[in-house]
Amino acid sequence: MKKILLATSALVATAGVAAADVSVSGTARMGLVYNDAWADEVQFDNRVRIWFNASGETDGGLGWGAKVRIQRDDQGGGAVNNNAVWISGSWGKLTFGDVDSADKAIVGQIAGVGYTGLGDLNEVDYKADSTAPSAALYEYSAGDFKAALSAAQPSNADVYAVGLSYSTDTWSIAAGYGVDNASHEVTVKGSVMFGDTTVTALYQDDSALADAFVGVSLEHTFGATDVAVFYDDNHGTDRYGIGASYDLGGSATLAGGVAYNDVGTGNTVADLGIKFSF
Amino acid sequence: MKKILLATSALVATAGVAAADVSVSGTARMGLVYNDAWADEVQFDNRVRIWFNASGETDGGLGWGAKVRIQRDDQGGGAVNNNAVWISGSWGKLTFGDVDSADKAIVGQIAGVGYTGLGDLNEVDYKADSTAPSAALYEYSAGDFKAALSAAQPSNADVYAVGLSYSTDTWSIAAGYGVDNASHEVTVKGSVMFGDTTVTALYQDDSALADAFVGVSLEHTFGATDVAVFYDDNHGTDRYGIGASYDLGGSATLAGGVAYNDVGTGNTVADLGIKFSF
Amino acid sequence: MKKILLATSALVATAGVAAADVSVSGTARMGLVYNDAWADEVQFDNRVRIWFNASGETDGGLGWGAKVRIQRDDQGGGAVNNNAVWISGSWGKLTFGDVDSADKAIVGQIAGVGYTGLGDLNEVDYKADSTAPSAALYEYSAGDFKAALSAAQPSNADVYAVGLSYSTDTWSIAAGYGVDNASHEVTVKGSVMFGDTTVTALYQDDSALADAFVGVSLEHTFGATDVAVFYDDNHGTDRYGIGASYDLGGSATLAGGVAYNDVGTGNTVADLGIKFSF
Repeated sequence: MKKILLATSALVATAGVAAADVSVSGTARMGLVYNDAWADEVQFDNRVRIWFNASGETDGGLGWGAKVRIQRDDQGGGAVNNNAVWISGSWGKLTFGDVDSADKAIVGQIAGVGYTGLGDLNEVDYKADSTAPSAALYEYSAGDFKAALSAAQPSNADVYAVGLSYSTDTWSIAAGYGVDNASHEVTVKGSVMFGDTTVTALYQDDSALADAFVGVSLEHTFGATDVAVFYDDNHGTDRYGIGASYDLGGSATLAGGVAYNDVGTGNTVADLGIKFSF
Repeated sequence: MKKILLATSALVATAGVAAADVSVSGTARMGLVYNDAWADEVQFDNRVRIWFNASGETDGGLGWGAKVRIQRDDQGGGAVNNNAVWISGSWGKLTFGDVDSADKAIVGQIAGVGYTGLGDLNEVDYKADSTAPSAALYEYSAGDFKAALSAAQPSNADVYAVGLSYSTDTWSIAAGYGVDNASHEVTVKGSVMFGDTTVTALYQDDSALADAFVGVSLEHTFGATDVAVFYDDNHGTDRYGIGASYDLGGSATLAGGVAYNDVGTGNTVADLGIKFSF
Repeated sequence: MKKILLATSALVATAGVAAADVSVSGTARMGLVYNDAWADEVQFDNRVRIWFNASGETDGGLGWGAKVRIQRDDQGGGAVNNNAVWISGSWGKLTFGDVDSADKAIVGQIAGVGYTGLGDLNEVDYKADSTAPSAALYEYSAGDFKAALSAAQPSNADVYAVGLSYSTDTWSIAAGYGVDNASHEVTVKGSVMFGDTTVTALYQDDSALADAFVGVSLEHTFGATDVAVFYDDNHGTDRYGIGASYDLGGSATLAGGVAYNDVGTGNTVADLGIKFSF
């Protein structure tokens, strides 16, 4: 027998005695993916993720939350992953678990394309995440200003990062600094929004690499359709892509894209599919 | 604190704003299993499976759904598995993920026995599933007629299947064709229902095997009790079994069976236990 | 979209048609752990566990239940684990799956300390659990008296245990006997409660070990604060610890402790963190 979880908040009000709530949410996708480096260039793609989220507040007003996820892709291995636990208050939010490094959390990425993300060719690498995963993240916001600090598990590596951002309705700017045992990097990003268009540029200088990362993306929305295009020079390698998504209503989005990575003899990837959230 | 999921559909009507619903359901079992090939012939058995199902509909009337499962048996390894995502409409249903091959989905199997299935000795192998798991399944039904097409992930193998069936209240017939890189097979099944009795016969010819599969099963229901018996010649090996189940009410079923596989010096298996669904 | 699970039992009464219920609950924790044996002595710690529980009753009055858990710690591997299925009635409760051995289930342990348990240095080993995990547990209670029997999976090892206890409001006594292929052990425990204080002592004699286990713990509650201290001689090795916890309300508890294990050159561990239940 199916047990249907309710989606109304009205009914939850009757559950006022509850000191802690659990919610279940998720995402799914199905579509086709293309990669000219594969012997069979087109493959079926699908993924289902279910999130479990809990939250509460202590008598003293300390907020807390916890989350964990199950996931399975295609016929591959399933996983229980992305756990995190946090406490929060007017002083900010402190999270232990699967967190982004502070620079990645604050600065983020230029816009990506495609139904799957297409290998995230729009993304810059953050060494405070890639040398060793960050394990603790402190975030603080005051009005339009945000700041964050992060550290990896000490037993993994001496990895730290910091991020700062300032946002208005029409523009935003962010900067981050990350350091591992061997090197350090600075990342800055700026966005300008005019009407339904957003232009974003990101620059990163890594002390361990000769070339910088320079990337720019443009997003435009008209009605239910979003279009995005990006170009970046990934520390010496050109990458670019274009994609679009259309909101089908009912928690479904049709999306697709094509992207190129000028690595080796060049690699073109593309996808088309539907994404669901629930 | 426990969060109790509601089982009423009436309350869900109040959640009309929700564009997508999530439900949780599951099965569990506990019992004893016997195998004369084991040094210790009787073992404890248990399994718990929890399903997460989401579904919705786009503004344009396209239905969609997604599912994934967690499972653990005995003290063995737990798993997140059996994910699938689909879209559906008057044109049929297209599913990507852990799907049956089209011939298996449409033709199916003769009746099995036992609380655990007893190694599924009643089942014929479908090469479109066993050479490489099917990854995409298209199903269509019109009145009493059903059809399906499937394909494995192209990177795994060139594996395709088709199935066709026609059912009435008192009889049904189904046929399937499956092909992999090396060989192909045809499977046909017919069922006749008279009163509380169902007789099913299945035949499969595999171009890679000298002998055919021929199987027949008989199921009979009296009150809360179901009895089933099967015999098959699995491409040259005799197998047969008998079992019964009794509906205990409250989502619980008592079931047991015994089956014999004439492989090697012969192997007898049996089980007895309770199955639950929720 | 988030689906919020209700926590009221009132609403569940409207679901009277349901023959089986599913509930979702969980625990989480975040904090710091210290171990003087580590190169980096302080580490971040976090864990999220989500439990799925189902229960029902057959038309004949046989109760049943099933459970399984997902869990992930830190950035480590996630798991689906701790599955069990049971039936129950006035005759007792029979569980197959991840169960404690009968002596461990009935006798248990002296009080532990710390937010994580600090390696469970307060715990005695039960060979009926450690030689091979128990797979079947029968429990019976009548008034203040409890009894239990357990067995491991026969294919794993010949492992059995029995436990007996008697409890009143102010004192309790328990005894257990466990046997594996090679040896056997007897464990006895007594507790005395006076006011807000509980003193517990545990003794175990293992036929395979020269020295016995002797342990004692003291727990005291004042208001929202619990304090615990333990000492044990673990078959020849001294171990001791002290800890405290404070109920923050809102399903949150602040806890910490320090413990010492006189193994090798000695090992000191400590922790401090917040635990949540939901």
